[in-house]
Order: sequence, then structure tokens, then C-alpha cells
Amino acid sequence: MEQVRVGICGLGTVGGGTLQLIQNNSIDLQARVRAEVVVTHVGVRNPKSGFELEGIRLSQDIFEIAKDPEVDVLVETIGGIEPAKSLILEALSNGKHVVTANKALIAEHGNELFQVAEKTGVTLSFEAAVAGAIPVIRSLRDGLAANQIKELAGIINGTGNFILTEMRDHGRAYEDVLKEAQELGYAEADPTFDVEGIDAAHKLCILASIAFGTPLNFDRVFTEGISKLERQDVVFAEELGYRIKHLGIAKSTDEGIEMRVHPTLIPEEVLLAKVDGVMNAVWIDGNASGPTLHYGAGAGALPTASSVVADIVEIARAKTSGASSGTPPLGVDLANQKDLPLLGIEDCTTAFYLRINAVDKPGVMLSITKVLSDAGVSIDAIIQREAEGEAGQVPIVLITSVAKESVLNGAVESIEALEDTVGPVVKVRVEALES
Amino acid sequence: MEQVRVGICGLGTVGGGTLQLIQNNSIDLQARVRAEVVVTHVGVRNPKSGFELEGIRLSQDIFEIAKDPEVDVLVETIGGIEPAKSLILEALSNGKHVVTANKALIAEHGNELFQVAEKTGVTLSFEAAVAGAIPVIRSLRDGLAANQIKELAGIINGTGNFILTEMRDHGRAYEDVLKEAQELGYAEADPTFDVEGIDAAHKLCILASIAFGTPLNFDRVFTEGISKLERQDVVFAEELGYRIKHLGIAKSTDEGIEMRVHPTLIPEEVLLAKVDGVMNAVWIDGNASGPTLHYGAGAGALPTASSVVADIVEIARAKTSGASSGTPPLGVDLANQKDLPLLGIEDCTTAFYLRINAVDKPGVMLSITKVLSDAGVSIDAIIQREAEGEAGQVPIVLITSVAKESVLNGAVESIEALEDTVGPVVKVRVEALES
Repeated sequence: MEQVRVGICGLGTVGGGTLQLIQNNSIDLQARVRAEVVVTHVGVRNPKSGFELEGIRLSQDIFEIAKDPEVDVLVETIGGIEPAKSLILEALSNGKHVVTANKALIAEHGNELFQVAEKTGVTLSFEAAVAGAIPVIRSLRDGLAANQIKELAGIINGTGNFILTEMRDHGRAYEDVLKEAQELGYAEADPTFDVEGIDAAHKLCILASIAFGTPLNFDRVFTEGISKLERQDVVFAEELGYRIKHLGIAKSTDEGIEMRVHPTLIPEEVLLAKVDGVMNAVWIDGNASGPTLHYGAGAGALPTASSVVADIVEIARAKTSGASSGTPPLGVDLANQKDLPLLGIEDCTTAFYLRINAVDKPGVMLSITKVLSDAGVSIDAIIQREAEGEAGQVPIVLITSVAKESVLNGAVESIEALEDTVGPVVKVRVEALES
Repeated sequence: MEQVRVGICGLGTVGGGTLQLIQNNSIDLQARVRAEVVVTHVGVRNPKSGFELEGIRLSQDIFEIAKDPEVDVLVETIGGIEPAKSLILEALSNGKHVVTANKALIAEHGNELFQVAEKTGVTLSFEAAVAGAIPVIRSLRDGLAANQIKELAGIINGTGNFILTEMRDHGRAYEDVLKEAQELGYAEADPTFDVEGIDAAHKLCILASIAFGTPLNFDRVFTEGISKLERQDVVFAEELGYRIKHLGIAKSTDEGIEMRVHPTLIPEEVLLAKVDGVMNAVWIDGNASGPTLHYGAGAGALPTASSVVADIVEIARAKTSGASSGTPPLGVDLANQKDLPLLGIEDCTTAFYLRINAVDKPGVMLSITKVLSDAGVSIDAIIQREAEGEAGQVPIVLITSVAKESVLNGAVESIEALEDTVGPVVKVRVEALES
């Protein structure tokens, strides 16, 4: 029986999970790929106990794997840009297929890497880079391949969703939950990557590339974190029938592509609003399929390994079926990618949640309404409280109609300039996620 | 540029949707498959207006398509067993790939059809046969291919879910909602297929085959409908923290495979419990991935066409990549299927909801508890009402611990034989759907 020989670089969470999964499910894998999937080489500085490494070549230098003629597929699980990038480039140049869970690398350097892979006729796969165990890359690329994707929106960072869920369910403050997330090991000591949306932006730009057939454009993703969200905004959103989720959103409009990561009010009745804790989910709306949702674990050793090994299975199946090339990893060959215009955030169009701190006296509501009306923005819902908080001040909370962000920003500036409003206006974008 | 020539049999909902989708998204499709996907032949008795049929050969006899050398892929959308089966057999024998949305045919005659397809080296695909637009066949077969699937549970009949949603949300009776579903066109004049679970059983046996690598065993799916559910059971379930869904469940146990379609209480906090109306969703728990959920439209012209064309895309991609064979449609070649033991319902193991009509007098609760305890079944939750309904009678509602169905049935018989209980005990199975 034919063999598909796998070399794993790194034996941490993902690398270790991948090794165990291949070993534990080997009989099923063999039936599914019509070949034996064997790990022949592992690159690891200090081999830990707890792994079955008999008969496997061990190297301290991971580049040995990229050179090893006994390796067909190199699995990169070391993360970060370098040396991961050089490692992958060397493996691709040596005619090896590569599987990676490295979203930062794919998002920031994928255009270059896929070019090398295409030239050498090998596959560079990355299902594990987005939303862990959820086969959302395949669903976009294969299962929904007949569609023009209109929009997608994902909870694609578990740490951020855990924090927002706790803030809502238990009335806790952002800093308090973040501290717990760090203690639980969900969030890094420097949580910026998660809570400021950079991790989500990496994943979003990969999803957008496949959805719309465009090159990877990480630098053009607008990013806003959840660190400035206040507990009261979570409560007001709830009162208006919404939940706040930190979403990565990619939308195809007549003007161009929107790509943005930000806190978002979504209607509490849509399924995505009900995805809680560290779980991930991606909502995808195609012009034929209508709305679909793809839900599962976004991280963890075995969930991530599930996707890494799915990529190995695909490569192995292509090999055993005699295909000269696999399905293009981004859905289309690079030459067929479309250079669609990318919209800056000021040209994006959404509804908005506004929280305005106003002096509690007659006429203030009229002034605010007039500013919005002059800008062509109408009000869809409103909460006005009896005086509370600062003496003589009341929060006025609005949901606006859909408006271009630049227009709304102008109105917000005018509202802030009003005599009877105090301090900055809090602004959170609102999405209907309708079908 | 290479062409992939498609012949569509039938221009009804699915066939018409498929034609329109291929025509409307042709440029994107071309980029995605590296070939031109063209409809060359349509089989239809009376060509309706509203379709662009210029340059397409039309035949009244669909078998002309199975013989046409200008057709690479035959799309069967006529439904039912015959003449669909003969048509597909002829197309496969003539070396044509076949795409179908026909769940009854695949479930009941798939073993024979796939054998012919394997022998002639062509592909028989059926993503559209299960859960409409949701790419759940691919997710099981490709995205989760690294897993041993432990269990799956699906809302895979939209009519049934619409009825249950209305019963819960609006306190309506079963017959009342069924009538509306028929008026809305969701349910057929003879609704047996939907509400008695036969349609769901067709889909479940297909999912189970891919999940566990077993032959299709439609005859071995246990089926129980929703027509006997009472409004009060929906209310009691709610009170206990559950929702009732009509689920198709396939589970791998040490004793064998469970396949069953029946009304099921599931915890209200799991995502599957929140899938309402005519939407479909399949929850899949793999030994590496953990729980995943796949949600979308289960029916409709374009949602179903989305999956039909996804199958065409896969066949076309395999063709243009020079593969000698595609991925086996059921995940493994027939020779690699496993003949695992299939459990009858009496050997299945679940928790149970029991509603017992009891005479309102001291000691009855003790008698019931004793019967269950003697059978080794404990009680996890209980509702006992003040006297209501029939004079002097009270409903006693229980959730039991997990027990083998044959054991529970014995206990139920003993409870029904008690002097202080009246009439039959209502029994609904309960699933935790935990990860």
C-alpha cells in the first residue's frame, strides 16, 4: 500500500495533537485515503515524554524536515513569521506539500507563499488557521463553491467571545474577565492580539480571500477591539434586543469589499448571537445557499489537529487518485484572483448604536434628532433614561438607520459639539445578519 | 478552455434552480473549476417559460440525456425511485458522472448504485440529498475526515421543525400547525413522509454511512413521528429546561451503531435547540474535533441547487486536475466499508421523559419510584402538579437517568399496571448532546 509520509515541525499543542491523532485514527485514515499515513520525521528541540516516537526520525533542526526525501507533507506548527516562513518556503521549493495552522503567516505572507507553491506544483493548506475544528475553509471553497458570497461574519476569536459572554451573563467588567481568561490560559499575558482584533483580522482576511476570490489583504482590514466596551453598553444592547459580539465581517458591495473587525450589535434571535464562551462560529450568506452557520471549537490540541489532518487527508487523496494538482487552496488559481476595490471603514455602511451623555433638560432630544435628520440618518430605536449617574446627566441610547460611516461620523461630531451633550459619543456598529 | 458538459433531467424546483445557478454564476464557476461549466442538454416534458434554453438540446425522454455523448455529468432531479434509478444506472453504465438530490433513492438503493459507479470509475454525488444548502456531506467526508465520529444528531426535516417551533412558540396544537404547513406548501397533502420521520430516516442513514464507514442501512433506522406529541409535553419539557426536536440520531457505541429518528428532548442551552422554523442543522461530535454544528436552509430551489452545483464543481475539478478517480462519495471505497452491528431500538440507551397520569392520592409517587428503582433507573428531575384535568388525576412528569430502552419499557409496563395510574405512559427520549 502506498505511503503518505508526514514530517511534523514542533511538538507543542498543535504538533503533538497532530501526531497523536494520526497514530490513534490510523486505520480509519488508511481507509479514507487509500494509503498509509505515517509520521516519519519530527522536528523538536527537546522531545517530551508522552509521545510514541519509535521509528520516527527526530531532528533538533526543523529545516532537516524540509530537506528530508522521506517526507511528502511538512506540517508547520511552530507559529509566528520566522523561521516558519523560511521553513515553508524551503519545503515548497523542495516539492513538499505543506500544512500549517499559522494564520498570521498565511494572512501576511500568503500571497508570496502560494505563488511558490503554485510554481512548484504542490499544495499549501491551512484549514486549521481559521476557527480550529470548524471545516469552514472547505465549506467556503468546496461546499459553497457554487455561490457568489454576499457576506460573512464570524466569531473567530474565542478569548474575545469568552470575555463578552461573561460580561453579559454575569454583569462583570472587562478587566475582571480578562484577568480570569489569562488565568485560564485562554488569553496571553499580552492580550492585545486577541482583544484588539488582530488575530481575528488575520483569519478574516483569509476567509475574505476565499469568499470573493481576491488576494490576501491583511493590511486593509479595519480593526477595533473590545477593550473600550463598557458593561452598560452590553446592558443597553440587551434591552434593545441585541447582543454584542466581536465579529470579523467581510461583505461584497457594489462599491467594493468591506473587511472589518469590531464589536457589533446583532439581533438576539439570530443563531450567531447565541454562540457563547470560547466557541467559534462563522455565518456565511451565499446568493444561492442563503445563510449558513458553521460552529465548533476554535482552539485546542485535538480540535486544531482535526483540521491539520483533514488537510493531510486531502493531499493524500489527491496523491492516490493520480491528480496532477489539488484544488487551489484559496479556491481559485492566483491568476484568476480578482483585484476588487477594498473599502476603508469610512466608506462602509451599517446601522449604529450611539450612547450620548446629555444634560437632563428639555430640548436636548430635539437637538440630537435634528442633527441626525440633517445628515439623512433616521432613528430606529431609542432608550432615554431618567437622570442617573452624573448629577443632572442622562444617557440617551439610539439605534440609527443604515448610513455610511463618514456621514455618521460627521453627525456624531455635531452631536458632541452640542451645548447640552457631555463628553464623547459611544459608537458601536450594528449588523442585521439577515438572509 | 476545457468544457464540463451538464445534462439536467427535470426542470422543476431543483432542476430549474440548478440551470439558473450555473448560468448566473458561470464566470465564478469557470475560475473555480478551471473549465467552462455548460448545460448542454435538458430533459423536460413541457419546457416552461422563464428559463434561458437557447443552445441547449431539449428532450422529452430523459433517457436521451443518459445516452448523450455531449454530456459529462447527468443531474437527476426528478425524485422517487423509478424511473430515477434506471436513469442513473444507465448514465453510470455509460461512463457519466451523476449528481442527484434524491435521498430516497440513495438511502434505499445506494449500495447497488455506488457499486456500479465504482465499477465504471465515475462519481455519484448527493450533497443536495441531505440538508439542502448545508455542505454537511462534505464536512463529514472531508473536513472531519480525521475523526472517529462518536455521534451526530440532526434537524433534517424542515416541515417537522416548523410544526414543533409553532407548537412551542404559539401554544398551537399539532393538527392546527400541520394544516398551515400544508397551506404554506411546506408539507405535502399526505404529510406522512415528513411527520412520521421517513424523510429524516433517509437522510440519517446517508449521514451514518459516511460517519461510520458502513453500508447504507435504511431498513434498520428506527422511526417515530411527531404526530402523537401533545402540547402539554412541549410545555412540560420547557419547564424542565428542554426543547423537543424531531431528530435523526446516529451514535457509535461499543455494542454497535444506533440509528433512530424520534422526538427528542434536548437541553435548551445547546445550539441545536435554538434552530427554529424550517431551517435544518446537523450537530456532529468527533473524537478530535469535539462538537460542531452545521446550519442552513434544508430546502428550496436555489439552496438545493447550491449543493447540486457544488457536486458538479467537485467532479469538474477532479476532471481538470487529471485525477483518475474522485474522493469516494461515502468517504471510503465500498470494499473498505465496515459491517458494524446495528442496534435495534430496544438496545439503544438514552434518558427518558415520562408523563404518567396518576390518581391524586398519597403513595402513588412512592409506587412509581419503587418500580423505577427496582429496574435500576433513577430519577433526575420531576414535576408533580396539583390536581388538574380529569377529576382526581394528576400528571407526574419525570426525567430518568440513562437506561437501556428494553429495561425502561419493562418499568413503564409495570407503572401502567399500577392501580393508581391511568392509561398509557407518554415516553419521549432525552439526549444531552454533550461534547
